Amino acid sequence: MRIGEDSPTVGVIGGGQLGRMLGEAAAPLGIDLAVLDPTPNPPAAPVATRTITAPFDDPDAVQALAASADYLTLEIELADPDALRDTTADTGIPVHPDPSTLRITRDKLHEKQHLADAGIPVPAFKPVNTPDDLHDAIDEFGLPVMVKARRGGYDGRGNFPVTTRNDIDAIIESAPHPLLVEDMVPFDRELSVIAAKGTDETRVYPPAENIHEDEILRESIVPARTTTPVRDQAQAIARDVLDTLDGRGVYGIELFEVDHQILVNEIAPRPHNSGHYTIEAATTSQFEQHLRAVVGYPLGDTSLRTPVVMGNILGDTTTPQPANLAGANTVLETPGAKLHWYGKREVRPQRKMGHLTLLPTDTPDPDTLLATTRALLDTLTFNP
Amino acid sequence: MRIGEDSPTVGVIGGGQLGRMLGEAAAPLGIDLAVLDPTPNPPAAPVATRTITAPFDDPDAVQALAASADYLTLEIELADPDALRDTTADTGIPVHPDPSTLRITRDKLHEKQHLADAGIPVPAFKPVNTPDDLHDAIDEFGLPVMVKARRGGYDGRGNFPVTTRNDIDAIIESAPHPLLVEDMVPFDRELSVIAAKGTDETRVYPPAENIHEDEILRESIVPARTTTPVRDQAQAIARDVLDTLDGRGVYGIELFEVDHQILVNEIAPRPHNSGHYTIEAATTSQFEQHLRAVVGYPLGDTSLRTPVVMGNILGDTTTPQPANLAGANTVLETPGAKLHWYGKREVRPQRKMGHLTLLPTDTPDPDTLLATTRALLDTLTFNP
Repeated sequence: MRIGEDSPTVGVIGGGQLGRMLGEAAAPLGIDLAVLDPTPNPPAAPVATRTITAPFDDPDAVQALAASADYLTLEIELADPDALRDTTADTGIPVHPDPSTLRITRDKLHEKQHLADAGIPVPAFKPVNTPDDLHDAIDEFGLPVMVKARRGGYDGRGNFPVTTRNDIDAIIESAPHPLLVEDMVPFDRELSVIAAKGTDETRVYPPAENIHEDEILRESIVPARTTTPVRDQAQAIARDVLDTLDGRGVYGIELFEVDHQILVNEIAPRPHNSGHYTIEAATTSQFEQHLRAVVGYPLGDTSLRTPVVMGNILGDTTTPQPANLAGANTVLETPGAKLHWYGKREVRPQRKMGHLTLLPTDTPDPDTLLATTRALLDTLTFNP
Repeated sequence: MRIGEDSPTVGVIGGGQLGRMLGEAAAPLGIDLAVLDPTPNPPAAPVATRTITAPFDDPDAVQALAASADYLTLEIELADPDALRDTTADTGIPVHPDPSTLRITRDKLHEKQHLADAGIPVPAFKPVNTPDDLHDAIDEFGLPVMVKARRGGYDGRGNFPVTTRNDIDAIIESAPHPLLVEDMVPFDRELSVIAAKGTDETRVYPPAENIHEDEILRESIVPARTTTPVRDQAQAIARDVLDTLDGRGVYGIELFEVDHQILVNEIAPRPHNSGHYTIEAATTSQFEQHLRAVVGYPLGDTSLRTPVVMGNILGDTTTPQPANLAGANTVLETPGAKLHWYGKREVRPQRKMGHLTLLPTDTPDPDTLLATTRALLDTLTFNP
């Protein structure tokens, strides 16, 4: 614990919106942030003390980041586990989570196998390389299934739903190999749990209920509109997941609720979009929590201050354009609404440009909060 | 309203803790911050996109700040009204609050006279230059009285309580002239109201009850432990004060409660220490509100989310030393407690180094919150 003249600097691989919100949370803890990002002047730059412009996996840049920092972490899975492992070995600057964890979570097949080996419930899955493999998997799982790129996918990119055997050849040909296929489970809802692993404890936030469209997160509702036993099960499984992974930090655990049972979908080894609600609705935000974990401070309180809904502000243009958000006045004028703008200068179709959080001003009814959030999102547009 | 590629930059005279907290609040609004401060690497630097190192009143530096900014404001009263007026005239970059307001509030005699002329209740006051003047004032007001430096005082510096006529010669000789003297009113409690003036409206936060020691703020308790009529009166008078001042922004209005009546003590034309509680306990913090006001966005909700106590972390060393805060683990481990570190590398006796905010985790009893806050502050020390 070094608050004062020796306050630590945390070096972050990635300088996007997660880095920006890490920076907003760092200052009150006396922590400085340095970021590495290939984009000049990325979203985190205004709240970072140093910005290195280089590819995420450039070993020299990772070394330079370590030279500016007391701890390394990441806000994007494109961080290179080998570069981080080598940098830590060379410099003695610790990295959290551990590169071994990144090696697991960056490959969706490894991740699923890792969870299954630990006895954690996951949808049925197997690797696929050829149309015949996929036919065999469908024989076993039944339709529909989801073909996924093992690496590099995010926000639904790299996911290919298969609802008919007619699509098989085209998908195997066009999808970026290597691939896996999963049983597409008929979930009742999607949940997620933000969980933090500290020096000697794990803490979990209340589960969020997540609404996706085109596989991009639209809204998170907290507490999730499900039963208390399901919420408890979700938190317990998130703890189980963290017990299998090395390295401190915040993790976003995406879950399916299927017939009152929880299955793990994916693990993000970093703060997660579905945890943005914690900035206003928990005493310790997921960003503060991640920084506490990385530098080895005590973890903070994860209890909910209030029910809340978070909605993503997505690019609604059909082409990339300079970003100019219209309609934000209504958000700023709405009691209980908080705007979070990410500072991206270009809008692209479906790009995450910001989010808004809606806190209840009277009766905390989740359906009303969700409806108001959607109405506010509808007032926002990037189209002139 | 320009959220996007044209998001505005706000240039701030001063880069201390208020600037740092402005920067923390700026990023979610998509606002960049540039600061001017004589200290290299001041508290606001990590969250500012540009830091100019120069005296607050250096006209060239103020011009350079304006050249980096779309709006100018200040977080310290040492800003020079004339330099700001000239810079605005030269560059067309607006400054808020208006330099005319700074001219009033930077001189405690002008400020009191301004308020009295507007019919706003203030303690009896008059200018003093000589021991005879002070004798005359004591004849009129009775003992005790407070002699104050008209300019440059803060945190009790420049205030000289007079409880006996024996002190008169020494005080008049040693105090930095010009001076005024005020009737030292037998207040029941000290209150303050954070009030914001926007483009076409004024909004006020709930009054804080402030506890000073050695004339330095120790704790703020919100809501103030007084009657509803007194709280209403405090808010009404804060609105009256803002009606007399030109320029948008947040103001801290310090008040005395004397026998259920409110008198105005001082006006700070900027976010105020007694408003730090708004970061966690209001939907719109005073820092976000100030930025909204300065750039002309709609003002935000000022209602209280929860009762709250704020406590200042003051330097407890007897000499200036490198700052190393011990005991913060306890604060970080306490549910509902939030640490705000200001990033100052040197601790000095009574220097404001940070603050902590305590939110209730069960019964929101203000006395209990205050006692817990004090216990937490007692765990913190800069002494090795």
